[in-house]
Amino acid sequence: MKKLLSSGLLSIVGLGPGDPELMTLKAERTIRAARIVAFFAKAGRSGHARRIVEGLLRPSCEELRFDYPFTTEIALDDPRYHERIGAFYDESAARVAQRLDGGESVALLCEGDPFFYGSAMYLFDRLTPNYRTTVIPGVTGMSGCSARAQVPIAHGDDVLRVIPGTLEEDALAAHLRESDAAVVMKVGRQLAKIRRACEQSGTLERALYVERGTQSQEEISPLGTVDANAAPYFSLVLVPGRRGRR
Amino acid sequence: MKKLLSSGLLSIVGLGPGDPELMTLKAERTIRAARIVAFFAKAGRSGHARRIVEGLLRPSCEELRFDYPFTTEIALDDPRYHERIGAFYDESAARVAQRLDGGESVALLCEGDPFFYGSAMYLFDRLTPNYRTTVIPGVTGMSGCSARAQVPIAHGDDVLRVIPGTLEEDALAAHLRESDAAVVMKVGRQLAKIRRACEQSGTLERALYVERGTQSQEEISPLGTVDANAAPYFSLVLVPGRRGRR
Repeated sequence: MKKLLSSGLLSIVGLGPGDPELMTLKAERTIRAARIVAFFAKAGRSGHARRIVEGLLRPSCEELRFDYPFTTEIALDDPRYHERIGAFYDESAARVAQRLDGGESVALLCEGDPFFYGSAMYLFDRLTPNYRTTVIPGVTGMSGCSARAQVPIAHGDDVLRVIPGTLEEDALAAHLRESDAAVVMKVGRQLAKIRRACEQSGTLERALYVERGTQSQEEISPLGTVDANAAPYFSLVLVPGRRGRR
Repeated sequence: MKKLLSSGLLSIVGLGPGDPELMTLKAERTIRAARIVAFFAKAGRSGHARRIVEGLLRPSCEELRFDYPFTTEIALDDPRYHERIGAFYDESAARVAQRLDGGESVALLCEGDPFFYGSAMYLFDRLTPNYRTTVIPGVTGMSGCSARAQVPIAHGDDVLRVIPGTLEEDALAAHLRESDAAVVMKVGRQLAKIRRACEQSGTLERALYVERGTQSQEEISPLGTVDANAAPYFSLVLVPGRRGRR
């Protein structure tokens, strides 16, 4: 059983892939009623999750903004990365906890689905032992991009692998080679490596690159025709499957 | 380029995992405006997708219902299965095409996300070469169940595998053993086999069984405590991951 410290409720709200109309009715209702919203953002940017709810917040709604302490200056495999990002999540959780302790409720805004590779999970992990939490699922970037590209992700007996683009090239290629269907997430600066891994695994011909799917400035192209070496964070690669019945 | 046969538009509408509030704003708007809706259903049942939109259809909305010709009487590996189900999708597509040919638009109702293991893909495949189509993505059953169970699916550098429960026991166990995180779909009559595969792969302790997630009569239990040998179609098994930062 949880030892509840307060009556405040933390709602972790999935907002979908970017198009505001792709948020759920439940997310919209929750956001319109919120007295306090919290969200992550890159320093100096408006914040992707925050942009999706533009126009929905009450005038009196208070905003807790958590600026990521860095984005790409420290490499993922540097031990300082884990230490600093852990401290950042600790501090962000403490700011939310303070409001919950006062009996207030907080809606944490999340792009996509909160439990599908989202930063929100790190606050959930820290707060759920002691506070009431509810999670509102959302449309993933994967589903949004697949719909926009008009390319089904997985059929019948396909095993689908969802692969972070941060893996090493050979590991990426091995997963791609063995998958019936695959989606590569977190493309960003990994784009050139992902393209090589698709080439190495014989999947480049089927691979589709989707940048900012469902958002303005959306781009959809065969990965083989994409020259750039880096992509925006909100991009992914679809390697559609096709097994089983037709 | 498509050779468009008509001005009718086929909208393939993801409705989410079951709770009507988990449909998107775009899905709701499309359903309320529809003059013709189409949906799949098991013979004698009201149809899961149809139930989700109860109360939203215009009084004059016409309903095209496609009854699956069989559910479990013919085994999946029987060649007659593929033949008959293929003929069924051909006929269903022809009924939709007839309306599109008349310049009418049709909204095809789909539970979950249409391009994530959905039957809608078989109509999409048949109709998209010749008709205007749009796809509205939805919240998957996987995201809905993970939110309700309050168990994040995949973190950081996890590779997630989405595995149809219809695979053979040894193939299932191998996927489960090699996965960072896994979701087993299409549980139904495969439940006992899936439990054995989890045991064989050492994942039974982490495995959670979610039945009718987000719907009434929802059930969430550790898979190891579930005695039944069969489950409803709308059930899945979550084997959560946990790699990378915390």
